[in-house]
Amino acid sequence: MTVDFFERHRELLDRAVRASATREYWSPYPESPSPRNYGETAGEAGRAAFEALRGGDFPMQVAGADRMAGGERSPFGFDLHITYPRLSPQAAVAASARALAGWRRAGPRAWVGVSLEILQRLNRASFEIAHAVQHTTGQGYLMAFQAGGPHAQDRGLEAVAYAWQEMARIPEQIVWEKPQGKQDPVRMEKHYTVVPRGVALVIGCSTFPTWNGYPGLFASLATGNTVIVKPHPTAILPLAITVRIAREVLGEAGYDPDVVLLVPHAAGDETAQALATHPQVKIVDFTGSKANGEWLEQHARQAQVYTEKSGVNTVIVDSVDDLKAAARNLAFSLTLYSGQMCTAPQNIYVPRDGIRTAQGHASFDEVADAIAAALQAMTADEAKAADLLGGIQSEATLARIEEARGLGMPELAQSRAITHPQFDGARIRTPLLLRAQAGHPAIAREWFGPVAFVVETDSTAHSIGLARDSAHENGALTLSAYTTDAQVARAVRDAAEDAGVSLSLNLTGGIFVNQSAAFSDFHGTGANPAANASLCDSAYVANRFRVVQARWHI
Amino acid sequence: MTVDFFERHRELLDRAVRASATREYWSPYPESPSPRNYGETAGEAGRAAFEALRGGDFPMQVAGADRMAGGERSPFGFDLHITYPRLSPQAAVAASARALAGWRRAGPRAWVGVSLEILQRLNRASFEIAHAVQHTTGQGYLMAFQAGGPHAQDRGLEAVAYAWQEMARIPEQIVWEKPQGKQDPVRMEKHYTVVPRGVALVIGCSTFPTWNGYPGLFASLATGNTVIVKPHPTAILPLAITVRIAREVLGEAGYDPDVVLLVPHAAGDETAQALATHPQVKIVDFTGSKANGEWLEQHARQAQVYTEKSGVNTVIVDSVDDLKAAARNLAFSLTLYSGQMCTAPQNIYVPRDGIRTAQGHASFDEVADAIAAALQAMTADEAKAADLLGGIQSEATLARIEEARGLGMPELAQSRAITHPQFDGARIRTPLLLRAQAGHPAIAREWFGPVAFVVETDSTAHSIGLARDSAHENGALTLSAYTTDAQVARAVRDAAEDAGVSLSLNLTGGIFVNQSAAFSDFHGTGANPAANASLCDSAYVANRFRVVQARWHI
Repeated sequence: MTVDFFERHRELLDRAVRASATREYWSPYPESPSPRNYGETAGEAGRAAFEALRGGDFPMQVAGADRMAGGERSPFGFDLHITYPRLSPQAAVAASARALAGWRRAGPRAWVGVSLEILQRLNRASFEIAHAVQHTTGQGYLMAFQAGGPHAQDRGLEAVAYAWQEMARIPEQIVWEKPQGKQDPVRMEKHYTVVPRGVALVIGCSTFPTWNGYPGLFASLATGNTVIVKPHPTAILPLAITVRIAREVLGEAGYDPDVVLLVPHAAGDETAQALATHPQVKIVDFTGSKANGEWLEQHARQAQVYTEKSGVNTVIVDSVDDLKAAARNLAFSLTLYSGQMCTAPQNIYVPRDGIRTAQGHASFDEVADAIAAALQAMTADEAKAADLLGGIQSEATLARIEEARGLGMPELAQSRAITHPQFDGARIRTPLLLRAQAGHPAIAREWFGPVAFVVETDSTAHSIGLARDSAHENGALTLSAYTTDAQVARAVRDAAEDAGVSLSLNLTGGIFVNQSAAFSDFHGTGANPAANASLCDSAYVANRFRVVQARWHI
Repeated sequence: MTVDFFERHRELLDRAVRASATREYWSPYPESPSPRNYGETAGEAGRAAFEALRGGDFPMQVAGADRMAGGERSPFGFDLHITYPRLSPQAAVAASARALAGWRRAGPRAWVGVSLEILQRLNRASFEIAHAVQHTTGQGYLMAFQAGGPHAQDRGLEAVAYAWQEMARIPEQIVWEKPQGKQDPVRMEKHYTVVPRGVALVIGCSTFPTWNGYPGLFASLATGNTVIVKPHPTAILPLAITVRIAREVLGEAGYDPDVVLLVPHAAGDETAQALATHPQVKIVDFTGSKANGEWLEQHARQAQVYTEKSGVNTVIVDSVDDLKAAARNLAFSLTLYSGQMCTAPQNIYVPRDGIRTAQGHASFDEVADAIAAALQAMTADEAKAADLLGGIQSEATLARIEEARGLGMPELAQSRAITHPQFDGARIRTPLLLRAQAGHPAIAREWFGPVAFVVETDSTAHSIGLARDSAHENGALTLSAYTTDAQVARAVRDAAEDAGVSLSLNLTGGIFVNQSAAFSDFHGTGANPAANASLCDSAYVANRFRVVQARWHI
């Protein structure tokens, strides 16, 4: 390639590899959109870039593609009116397979160098991507910037770091010398070549298209696979911008831009299925529903399938120092992006007889009321609430709130409609908080969106057992617990280790259970039904490439 | 534990980790049975230990087990008459799951320490195991010692080294400190706990029960899983001795011996299926037939499944310096253990118009005759031939020779019965070498055992294409090529990388295509249908454990 992207980013790569080993705080991509980080004009330029895309043909040339209307509509109340170049699944796989031969031969340094350059350019495009994420997912602007931009880039970089680490440990060439007693040793030259699995597919989700899409995209690309990105029909734009940038870098580096392809499609058609089961597709990364994830695990048998599906995240309330602070932290987790996060809590277990607090005993009702009051306080100012809640991404989530109300459970906090100060048609709702009995079948499923339950249990031991069994059976990405008792904490940790779920203890400050930080927090464990992989670890990258050796006598 | 096995073997472990990184020659377990390596009495003691096992109850106490007659018969012509303790699949999984809770909490150092102590004791038992391997698999004694003893132990140690490497990179505990501008940083303590997947199953094969069984056994055990070993009904004894030793070490270290269990069973029953699809079985390692391997991949959906199935290994003959030396090397690979190796070559592609040699042109017939003559020379001395060929392990393999003769292809070398100087009833046959046309459907399948084909092709380019396509379609663990032309060598390497098959070039000396050395040679690539995994790499171990984290504010 004309520019050695690998050397350009070598230091960044080494730093990322180190960070993933120490797991200490680190990020090269500033999470604050401040002009001090991104320059005085970046914010406005990003906004303008987004506005320029609206109502037009998305600027990307793909040989053999026709155009399709994207049909995306902002949860803040307007249509994007963007058309995208489209290839059929068959044509896309054929183009990807054609690009594979040259990409395979480029080798690990080129794969990683190109990946790192793409990430740097994505970082520069963070404002454009922020608007695209906001107006497809419904995230508030600041969250769309952070989660859709730098935090997503962190997760992509993390995947590249793991990929490099695993590939770099394979020596390219060695001399093997086996002693033969008094005779001359046998001497062989051995060469080890890292080869990709083939064509990889990334199936994007509607709520975090970049954050959930980048790990698979970069893990596959950095290990020499070509990648087809199939966005969710309601959230094409953030991944279209991503693919546009990837293709620019590939072209500049002298590779076929078709190494990364976008395959947009209309809702309800069979594009995902056709791509995922294509014999030449060898890797599938998926984030989405349990039903679709399980379908892939069952049917995409020719591929390595990495899925993040639904789960039921739980909270165990045993005892607290400061009930209000705990309730505020929980309320924030329920409110942020209207709970449309795979990590948001849903079932909050509280013993029927109440809990200990530093201020004395608190009854079940007092605990439930504290959470409801914190929700109320957090959404009292409509303008601030609108930013925090964001828009409801899909009609299905809106309908789910009504379905939950129909369960007939007592409403601890009602779901209210909120008006956005800037966007008239925005679809915004505060969280619905219901009171439930342990064992009610409705709480054993995921209620994706702003629906949560305060659940009466017999005791903390009962709560722990319920949390463990629910994670085993229904899956869970997060478990949160509040306890001031070291023995209870130990029992909760043991249950978490048994059920394979990440645990956050006693969060009362500025860290929330639904947040996970790249390089430090594993997102998902792969050890319960919520996900079959973790972001990011060796297992996530090591099977995306294989090693072919050649040996001969010297 | 009373003895710190981890510290005892720490240096060995570090050396093994280093060897798997440099991939240079290394082994801590001497492959020569010489008294200089194992002591003057070890050979005789091992023989005596084997003889003492014959005709009796295998000495292993398993709670709740009844006794079953093993029914093993030596391919050298006598019954072993050993009975084994037997648990039902349900009882075995229940016992394994009970043992799991304590083993999970023991942690990586204990898992690895116990694994290394087991390996050391297996090494001391190499002579006993050699006899057990010889008289179940039919391998000649020296091969049974090497492949069944030290080489198998090498592969087990390699798996432990990879497992340790992957687990050791996860810090147990860190402080995470995120800057907050002018405010105090957020500080959290994070703990990362390595947890096993659960109960692991190792399905043993009939020809290399220890060599193919140890990688999965030790990869699972060293990552905290409990292990059920289900031997092939015709080769129970080598794995029974292995499990006996593992249970001794576990007991001494203060763990439940049921962490490793043997589940012998009669041929044709449903034990393997019941175990492999049990909901609590989370890992399956399998070596065996294509049909059984594919059944597992399809049905054991609750588990990580690692399979080594059948393949069709090919040889490309383009040009040679020394035809006789090449033919001798090939003939040895066909003769060793009667080709009952997953790495033995089967289809030897030779251009119809012949090849270039340093001595001038050699016609197709001259090449085929050279291989046949080398086979003849290698088996002329019956006593030596008997040691090299070993016994035919199964009636099915014997029948396969007859089936191949029935194909009606010209016989370049006939399959002859050989008399063993020591064992009257030994079932020994020399390899059958047939002349085939490219494209004959019969050569697209594996003929496990002493059957090979010299295949007429249009040209070397044709041979390369056939080898590549055959590996893609039928799978292959090895590809061997003979060429003096650098361009042809490059084309063969590209085809090998495309088809994901290990390549050996111009073997004419004391290294054979069917041999692979632990720490240096990857056995299988996982990139074609012959195997979905490689022995041994990060991907082989990294998904056998998961990490569960817990975090809280400091």
